[in-house]
Amino acid sequence: MEIEVPDRLSGELADGGHRLLQRVYYEDTDFSGVVYHARYLHFLERGRTDYLRCLGVRQGDMMADENDAGAAFVVRRMLIDFLSAARMDDVLEIFTKTRKMTGARLVLEQRISVGDRALVTAEVTVALVNSEGRARRLPDRLAALFFT
Amino acid sequence: MEIEVPDRLSGELADGGHRLLQRVYYEDTDFSGVVYHARYLHFLERGRTDYLRCLGVRQGDMMADENDAGAAFVVRRMLIDFLSAARMDDVLEIFTKTRKMTGARLVLEQRISVGDRALVTAEVTVALVNSEGRARRLPDRLAALFFT
Amino acid sequence: MEIEVPDRLSGELADGGHRLLQRVYYEDTDFSGVVYHARYLHFLERGRTDYLRCLGVRQGDMMADENDAGAAFVVRRMLIDFLSAARMDDVLEIFTKTRKMTGARLVLEQRISVGDRALVTAEVTVALVNSEGRARRLPDRLAALFFT
Amino acid sequence: MEIEVPDRLSGELADGGHRLLQRVYYEDTDFSGVVYHARYLHFLERGRTDYLRCLGVRQGDMMADENDAGAAFVVRRMLIDFLSAARMDDVLEIFTKTRKMTGARLVLEQRISVGDRALVTAEVTVALVNSEGRARRLPDRLAALFFT
Repeated sequence: MEIEVPDRLSGELADGGHRLLQRVYYEDTDFSGVVYHARYLHFLERGRTDYLRCLGVRQGDMMADENDAGAAFVVRRMLIDFLSAARMDDVLEIFTKTRKMTGARLVLEQRISVGDRALVTAEVTVALVNSEGRARRLPDRLAALFFT
Repeated sequence: MEIEVPDRLSGELADGGHRLLQRVYYEDTDFSGVVYHARYLHFLERGRTDYLRCLGVRQGDMMADENDAGAAFVVRRMLIDFLSAARMDDVLEIFTKTRKMTGARLVLEQRISVGDRALVTAEVTVALVNSEGRARRLPDRLAALFFT
Repeated sequence: MEIEVPDRLSGELADGGHRLLQRVYYEDTDFSGVVYHARYLHFLERGRTDYLRCLGVRQGDMMADENDAGAAFVVRRMLIDFLSAARMDDVLEIFTKTRKMTGARLVLEQRISVGDRALVTAEVTVALVNSEGRARRLPDRLAALFFT
Repeated sequence: MEIEVPDRLSGELADGGHRLLQRVYYEDTDFSGVVYHARYLHFLERGRTDYLRCLGVRQGDMMADENDAGAAFVVRRMLIDFLSAARMDDVLEIFTKTRKMTGARLVLEQRISVGDRALVTAEVTVALVNSEGRARRLPDRLAALFFT
């Protein structure tokens, strides 16, 4: 049986990048009443995963694919500004776009917002590594996707 | 600015209960390769939260509402069977329905599946408590919602 | 360089079972002010992992060991009673002991408490599986450990 | 009944900062086989919380203390370098020290390592806010603690 997946479950390519909506649930908050700071990194990672998915890349498959020799993206550096806090029941918009690419590294810009209010901005450097964790050049097929 | 929330972000009432679709991301998995067992409780809780939301109850508001005296649902008991494992990129269907209600307690039946394959079934007993954590009877307005 | 690991980082075998102390941090709480219910399953799992560790079993090694053919313990069923709530800064005691063993299944009893106050009791059924997820009998060497 | 808390559960002040040892459990890993990147922020936050605790500050109390008007530390900015990956069963050392303080902001340097291998370095800017989330100057009593 095929599941009927809602059109926008994985977000959509838009404005030169990718946009994903995600709900804040209990699990995301802490006793201060707002979202726990590290949870924004989960939302950012969901954004990157679905950005890749919308570009045609499934990370689960990449790691299993023998031609890709267990290729996986790993985060090397993050610069994160926490500007404002989200609360239970909020719907977050996660926007992701590629800023530049150099050899094995990709620099992404990400932003989480609720309506017009920016909550978090992040500059995220990711690298492609093989199954031993060593950096490898982005295959041309992959590299091309980020600038279409 | 209003966010345009996708129709099905909060799932939908169906088959005498509620159905929600959620993606498995990196954060949900562990080094055994499949979803970490405790993460299914997060998916179940998202299902309960959105079941309430579709019935017209927002938990964030309930706790802040003075008339409701900081009322909140808390989980008292769970019986969980882990039948099969989900993997990265899977789309989970979380189904939630009310089985019975007695005074301050509500017994829900929940099921997580991928397509035809059942992953987790759970019987979840929740109670309504006030801001001091003491059990209180479900207001008639609330009680009526679970059997419409 | 060897790290000097504090004596009790992994808890200790005691009272026919295992006892572990763990702190409640920000990450464990939610906006209701107390510990998020699913987090107790993390504390229970840490208890089981360190119970095995104190018995001489390292799960990371088990999965990599060829003789064990990628053997891993997976949770099949949990019956959990949530009796009272923990708060930020609390020190939790997690007590784990074996109740019975039958073929490929092991039934553990666990309890989380703060001082004299019981927070959570759980009956946890785990099974040993191979790398394809199929149940396998506990090797005698392992089985013997749980009743010493 | 008093719990006997192990001496080093909250780490210890050392080398002009604070040192905490924490175990990697199942919950911390993802299907790539190593620790999920966002989990390092949990370890860093545990380090900051216990650094404060060893300096005599309990965040749970601070928020409840009326004199402190619900004061809480919030993270404003993080620059994180992910250098190497931890695995299941590893014991992480989290080192935290104060680099500078300006009005309402505190800049901390943190490092996570396994033995001699550095895994993560982070520069973390935190601010003290009141219960409405507005920045407030560090009370002299607090400020003094960070440079003793």
